[in-house]
Formats: sequence, structure tokens, C-alpha cells
Amino acid sequence: MPSWKVQTLGIIPESIRNLKKRSRGGESVKLKAIPLDIYTGGRYVAVMNKERVESMNLHPQDRILIKFGSEEVVAIIDTTERGIGKDEIGTYKDTTEKLGIKKGDLVEVVPAKPPESVEFIKEKINNQSLNYKKILKIIEDVVERNITDIELASFVTALHLNGVSLEEAEYLSRAMAETGRILELGKKPIYDKHSIGGVPGDKTTMLVVPIVASAGLIIPKTSSKAITSPAGTANRVGVLTNVDLTLEEIKEVVEKTNGCMAWGGSMELAPADDLLIQVEYPIGVDPMLLPSIMAKKKSVGADYVVIDIPVGRGAKIRTMEEAQDLADSFIELGRRLGMSVRCGITYGEQPIGYAMGPALEALEALKTLMGDWSAKDLVEKATSLAGMLLELSGEHRGKEKALKILKEGVAEKKFREIIGEQGGDPDVKPSDIQLGDKVVQIKSNHSGQVLWLSNPILSEIARAAGAPKDEGAGVLLNKKVNDLVNKGDLLFTIYAESERRMDRALEILKREEPVIVRKKITEKMLLEEVPGKKQERFFLLER
Amino acid sequence: MPSWKVQTLGIIPESIRNLKKRSRGGESVKLKAIPLDIYTGGRYVAVMNKERVESMNLHPQDRILIKFGSEEVVAIIDTTERGIGKDEIGTYKDTTEKLGIKKGDLVEVVPAKPPESVEFIKEKINNQSLNYKKILKIIEDVVERNITDIELASFVTALHLNGVSLEEAEYLSRAMAETGRILELGKKPIYDKHSIGGVPGDKTTMLVVPIVASAGLIIPKTSSKAITSPAGTANRVGVLTNVDLTLEEIKEVVEKTNGCMAWGGSMELAPADDLLIQVEYPIGVDPMLLPSIMAKKKSVGADYVVIDIPVGRGAKIRTMEEAQDLADSFIELGRRLGMSVRCGITYGEQPIGYAMGPALEALEALKTLMGDWSAKDLVEKATSLAGMLLELSGEHRGKEKALKILKEGVAEKKFREIIGEQGGDPDVKPSDIQLGDKVVQIKSNHSGQVLWLSNPILSEIARAAGAPKDEGAGVLLNKKVNDLVNKGDLLFTIYAESERRMDRALEILKREEPVIVRKKITEKMLLEEVPGKKQERFFLLER
Repeated sequence: MPSWKVQTLGIIPESIRNLKKRSRGGESVKLKAIPLDIYTGGRYVAVMNKERVESMNLHPQDRILIKFGSEEVVAIIDTTERGIGKDEIGTYKDTTEKLGIKKGDLVEVVPAKPPESVEFIKEKINNQSLNYKKILKIIEDVVERNITDIELASFVTALHLNGVSLEEAEYLSRAMAETGRILELGKKPIYDKHSIGGVPGDKTTMLVVPIVASAGLIIPKTSSKAITSPAGTANRVGVLTNVDLTLEEIKEVVEKTNGCMAWGGSMELAPADDLLIQVEYPIGVDPMLLPSIMAKKKSVGADYVVIDIPVGRGAKIRTMEEAQDLADSFIELGRRLGMSVRCGITYGEQPIGYAMGPALEALEALKTLMGDWSAKDLVEKATSLAGMLLELSGEHRGKEKALKILKEGVAEKKFREIIGEQGGDPDVKPSDIQLGDKVVQIKSNHSGQVLWLSNPILSEIARAAGAPKDEGAGVLLNKKVNDLVNKGDLLFTIYAESERRMDRALEILKREEPVIVRKKITEKMLLEEVPGKKQERFFLLER
Repeated sequence: MPSWKVQTLGIIPESIRNLKKRSRGGESVKLKAIPLDIYTGGRYVAVMNKERVESMNLHPQDRILIKFGSEEVVAIIDTTERGIGKDEIGTYKDTTEKLGIKKGDLVEVVPAKPPESVEFIKEKINNQSLNYKKILKIIEDVVERNITDIELASFVTALHLNGVSLEEAEYLSRAMAETGRILELGKKPIYDKHSIGGVPGDKTTMLVVPIVASAGLIIPKTSSKAITSPAGTANRVGVLTNVDLTLEEIKEVVEKTNGCMAWGGSMELAPADDLLIQVEYPIGVDPMLLPSIMAKKKSVGADYVVIDIPVGRGAKIRTMEEAQDLADSFIELGRRLGMSVRCGITYGEQPIGYAMGPALEALEALKTLMGDWSAKDLVEKATSLAGMLLELSGEHRGKEKALKILKEGVAEKKFREIIGEQGGDPDVKPSDIQLGDKVVQIKSNHSGQVLWLSNPILSEIARAAGAPKDEGAGVLLNKKVNDLVNKGDLLFTIYAESERRMDRALEILKREEPVIVRKKITEKMLLEEVPGKKQERFFLLER
């Protein structure tokens, strides 16, 4: 029987608000739970039958509120045509456990709105700038896993294409720090150092931290693990000691030694960064470079920061102009966040030192600390950056002081103290470090001079050989740019822990030339043939 | 025992290529298959343990090649910490069936590269323009489901932000048409008509097709279903006849009647469009408007096309300037694709006619065809656009001819012929059309004149009432812009098929005012308060 009703519509919404409240809005259905045996890593996802989703006027990736007893979660809809029936709902383990449901339980499902932050993401996609409140809401929802991959990929792409203003970088830094834990040492001032990355073999931090810590500066250094490179500082240090520290453990180590070298990933400092990287990595963009680095500096309470910006072909930053602009942005962003920042623009056309891969690099750093200065560029770079930190503390001739600390073995002593406090062997000898036992030496079949080392190709070879997961894998250079080469001279050595991975590394040499040896520069005027072999863009995300 | 080997590295890669081929590259592991009970809708996805993924130096969303016997697929990696062990791999049903595996089977897993098109997507993200070959490769991989959501969202966002050039629009149109099926009628010329959408209640097509078909023009019209609106043409026509036709069936109907009104979604004309919409919808962008429409026109072999561009507040295009630019682009894009295009910029500030929702609109279209011209704007719009098509065929006074065809009942006869051939009842009477039996009339509690009807709010009410899924649900206006209103006059009627959905529709009236009735314009000078109630951006994706 048809039901006819009449209502009136007035000027003043109040007249309408007085209507008897008939519904809480949103239509609900009861569905039978089908728990799925997979964790989604913190995100709530439910699988519904396509027809059911359509009949509710919903779409894939829309949100639903799932209620069971007194528990409820907002989940993102995945659809399927078969496997889950019209009256069923598949719940991944995160959702299943949160609701406390078991197979066959009836749950209530109601359409839900996307979080407000999705509107703010859309604003950014439409090239509007975002205020702090909106950025904080977005970052909060990123950390709470309320944002879908599609939304997050779109946000990151929009940041990349529209650019991140200094205001937004400041807001992003603050929001990322605020949504994570904070290291509170109860001491001031705090010093820190960071490289934007992009150069393989950069074990500078392993020298800088003990140098400045032995000068009395407090430097609670956290570092990342490799994503696309053969080793990050956390991988290198991890060969010699434990890097997986809690905030409490960092406090203890710094209390005793003034410094530490810990992995930043495990202690929830600016946790949004890792979630953003998961989307930035597949699409090869890095708009969060500035805010991510500065958020982590803010999380450890840094007052004085030195940023290393390597420049060169095959590095993240290609030209001096770009590097200077980036340096200006770091300094201004630091000012806004209450940090005094200095930047060092460094030569990044070839690897730092000779070693790439966790164990090879730990070995090179240890030897350098112990007085073997054959990796001259490493010594030069580390003492320059350490000198800048020392000067920020009021020292006049920072670099000289840094060299002295290194030369006299004070830095080595401090280094051993730190790795000892972090749980490693303070008396570690170079011969204790295990390298991969599959070794191939690559020699030159002609004479000349090294014109060029390719960072991307060397990284690719070291990674194919197993680095960073296989700590003993990597590449050890024997020649660097401008070195003279005789026919038969060793160019570099590849280390691997398995034949299989060594094979993969050697495979690369069939198509790529990591070391260019030529008599004179005029011998190789043709740089590339088009069409020719595909040059893949090498993407450096580490920061 | 350490293995030492020596190789030489030469100037000419050939010297290296002669190395004994030691490996096909890529490291393989054997994992135990755990089939999962879910279909992913054509995309190959595998779930692996996080530790296993890391130990292979892989990341979530990377690709792997899975081999079993002679079968292999490239799948995208999802990771989980629990549920799937280190030596296991979860396979969704699409993957399970493609490989023919069952629980416990050992499959071989090898890291795989992303398809080449991902590099092209990255080029677009870095603001490079893409040539035809690259765009075709991207669209092919979209259709074959080789692109992840993250990559696709990023591509669509980049198109939105960088803009789509006319070259790219041409390439996208061609690629989308080429990767789908093509309607070949064996007759020429073909006429077509399309609205870019954005105005609710636009049942113009249901008049235009029979008018021009009865004049002898061939018009194989395909339409979409609603995504964010109360009804698409396929929903409206679907009330009266079958719209889910195969290409063969379309050919038969057009052979007999010169026209058809079919749903474009089931016959794989430009299938990339639906997959792109799945990403565009959640982030609220529509960079593919031009190429998507023109790809579908190309797929049906159109020679002459009339494009309707509604303009107004609450429509997709807000200003005449924007509309003229878009019209120019359509005309130029048509020229490049070998089509003669004319555009009609139409008034889109309020719904077309009075009815919104599938059955209400089908009823209004049928009544209008039968001679009830109370929906004057509908008659005016339909005969204007039909007139443009007639003029493209050489007719001089197109609109007059269209009006005559409509007035004399020739169009009604043709309409009945077409719906009959498509499998509906050619003798359908208005009273046969079932409307929702839950009805609420909304009356005005004051006198004045209608200043404004809100397309977005009226759409929202009709959708909340159940449209388009509940065909009988919707909104029937009684007053339109400039109409005089006495206190107690009926403004509009809401129809629903269930109390629950009616409640949801009425809920909206507590916060929104879809019909603005005022004495004079000066009564409502304050348009919005800030901060005040949140105005949600209404996103119109239908095209």
C-alpha cells in the first residue's frame, strides 16, 4: 500500500530540524562474517560482493562502518564477484580481531564517509595550499591507516607536481613529528647530522658521530636502512653492533657516550615517513625529502643540524644551483622549526671511499678510524662535516680539530665506546668482519685513465650481489676517478654470499659499464644511441 | 671454502657478452601455495611474508614472476606479517586459477620488473609529454590490469595537474578505442550525441535518438549508468527495455530502426575508461573527460557528433568561458580523430524537466514523446540538439524539423520501435511505469519566487532515496527557477521504495535547502558563513 506523507520546507532550517528524528542516516545491512587469514598491516579492509556494493549505491574504495556488539571499525571496501556472497563480508585479520568476530557472526554494515582529510587531499590535488590544521589531519590519518593507497598516491603526486611550499614543509615537519614519539634527553643543546643521500658507500656518519661526541657534543644520531641503495648507515653500523634501540636505550647510550648510531625505523619517530615512502617508492617521487628529514631532526630535539647535500651526475641532486636552492630551503625550514641549520654541498659524482655493501663499508669505516686513511675522500668529507658541527658549537677551526680528533685515535676510542654501549664488541678487529666468500675480481682489458664511475650501476651490482640483506655482499673499488689504469689492473671486486646472487651481479656487467676507462676524453664522444639500450632512471629514495 | 674468480672488463661490451651465460638473471625461490578464496577482478596479486620479501630485496607493490609447470604470471606483491609464512605464498583466485595450483603446490617465484609503461607513467609524473607509443602501452597495461592502484592514481593525478594536451588527448582517445572492441555497422555516415553530464534529470537522449533516427540518420547511441548522479541514460532507458546489448544485437537493432539506446559498459568499447574511473572517483578528478568521450565515439565509428556542454552553478562547467574552451577542444580533437564535431553549450543551472531518478525520468520522457510538453526546457533542449545533428546531415532548419517530428508523433513511433527491438514493450503506457510507493511531498511554508534549485542537493536526495539502484526512487519537482510560490504550495515530491531510504533522503533536508524560495533577491545576500556548516564539494564524474 502506498504511503503518502507531506512535509513543509521553510526558510529557516530550524523549522526542518524540528522534524521527528526518523533515522540516524545511513542504511544498514546485516552480513555474515567470513574471516580471511591475512593481515593488512594496520589498515581495515573488508571484501564485499560487487552486487551488494552496487545495491547499496557504494563503490570499491568507499568506506563502511562495521559494527559488532559494542565494537566498530571504519573499513575500506574491496569488491569481488565471486568467493564472497551477497550476504557475506570478508574481513582481513586486523578487522576480524578488532571486532572480535568469528566465522558466521552477523555484523552490521553502514555506509560511512571518508575521513575529512580526504577532502583536504582533494584540495591539494586542486592546487590549493593547506594550512596546519588540514596537514595535521592528513598526517594523523596516514599514521592511523585511514587513507587508501589511491588517495595517498594522489596526494604524494600532487605534492610532487604542485611543489611543497616552505609553509607546507614546516607544517608537514611539525605534523610528522607530532604524530610520532619524541626523544627527550633532558640535555641541551642537541647536535645532529644528516645526508640527503644518493651516493653509494657514504659511511661518513660512522666517523662524524664519534668525532663530535668525543668533543663533548651530544649527537643522538638515527639513520635509515637502505631502500634502493647497497647500504644505509643503519645497515653499516648493524654489522658491528645492535642498531635496533628503544628511545630508553638511546637515552642510556647517549648519557654515557654523548652519541649513538641507531636505526630510526623502530622507535616511531615520525612514523608517517615510512608509510609515505611505501607510496613514493613505486612511483619514483620524493616530495617529502625536506619535511621528512626535518621532522626526524625535530623528533630528537635537535638544535644544531648539518645537512650534507651530495651533488653530481648519478647523485640525487645534479647541479650546484639545485643544491644551493635546497640548502636555502633547509636553512629557512630549520629557522621556522627552531633549529640552526648549516648545509654542506659535497662532491657526489662517485662513491665515498672504496667500499659499498654493509660489511665492506663497516670495515672501511673501522680501518679509517684506526688510522688507515687510504680512503682520502672519506676522511676529507667526514672531517669537513664534523668541523661544521664543531663550529656550530663555537669552535673556530672545526675541521682542524676534527682531523686532530680522528688522527689521535680519540674518535676510534669513542666509536668503540658507542658500539660497546649499543651491545656490540668494543674490541672488534677488522679481521672479525665477515665478507661474502664468493668473490669475483673485475680487471681492465686496456690501459687508460678512469673517466667516470657510475653510482647507479655500481649500486645495482652491489644489490644484485645481495646487499644490503646479505651483509657480506657488495662491491670494493680498486680505482677511482682520474686513477691511471694498466691493462690487467684490478678495477673492482664483487663479493656475494651465494653463487646465485653473484651470477645476478655478473649478469649486469653484460649490459652496463660501471667504470669507464679511456685514453683520452675524445675517445668516447658518443654518450648514448637512440634508439639503443634502455637507460633506466635510477631512483634514490633514501634520506 | 671461498671461491675466487677473475673477470676482465673491456671497452666493448661484446667482450663481456661472450661470458658464458651463467644465469637468466633474477633469483628464484620455491614457495608453498596457499590459495585465498577471493577474486581480485582480473589483477594478479600475491601475498607474501614481509620477511621473505625483505630477504629478496623486494618491496610491497613490486612485481614477481610466479611459475608453476608451464604456466606463469607476473603478480603484484602484497605483504603480511602473519597468516602467510616465510615459505608460503598466498594467491588470490585469479592467480590460483591462471596457474592451476592447489593448496601446498610448490611454485617458483622470481623478482620481475614493472612493465615498461610504469616508466612512461613516471615520465608523465615528471611533466614530460608522452608520444602515442607510450600512451598506447600505458592504456594496454591498464586494460590488462598490469598497473597497480598506486601507479594509476599517480598517473591520473599527473594528468589532472599537468593537463592533457590535445596531442595527448588524441593519443589517449586512439589508444582507448584501439584496446577495446569496435562497432562496425557497414553503413556510413554514423551520427552520435553526447552530454558531458553534470545536470540531473537530463533525459534529452531519449528524445534526440528517436527524432534523428526517424529522419533517417544512423545513431547507435551508447550511454553510461550513473556513478554519482540519480540516473544515467542507461538507467532511464533500462526502465523500459533491455539496455545490456552485445555489439551484434546493437547492429540488428540499428539495422531495423536506424538507432538504439544501449548501455556502453557491457560491450568492451574503450574498456580502459571504467578502470580509470575506478581511480578518478575516489580522488575526485576527471582529466580523461575529453579522451574518454571521444574514444567511445570512435569505437562506434561516429562521423558526425554533437556534444552537449551544460553550464551553470552546480553543473560540471561553471562559466561560459570554460565551456567555450572545452567546445574548441572537442572540435579540434574530433578533427584529429576524423570526426566532424559541433558543440551545444546549454543552460545547466537546474535539472532538465521535473523528474530525477530512473522511473520518474523514463515516465517524463515517454509523456513528452506522447505530446505532453509540460517539461518545456526538455523539449527545447532535445529539439535544439537534434536540430544540430539534422543540420550536420545537410538539413537547413534542423530545429524546426526536429520539433515537427516530435509534435507529429513520429519520434514516439520510432522510440517504441527501438525499445521494442531492444526487447521491451513497444506499447508501454505511462501508467505501466512503477514508481516508488513511499512518497513524501515537500511544501513551502512561505510565499515568494524560486530563486535557485541546487543540482547537487537534489541529486543527493534522489540518491539517498535509492536512485539509481531502486528504479522507482527519485525526486519530482513541482516548481522550477522563477516560478511563483504560495505558502503551502508543493515544491517537490520524494519517491522511495523503502521507508529506510526515504528516511535517509529526509535526513538531508535537515541540513540542506535544495529549493530557495525568497520574496526578493535582497532577502538572501549572505551566501555562506565561514566557519559554518561544511559545504562538501560535489563531484560529477558521469560523462
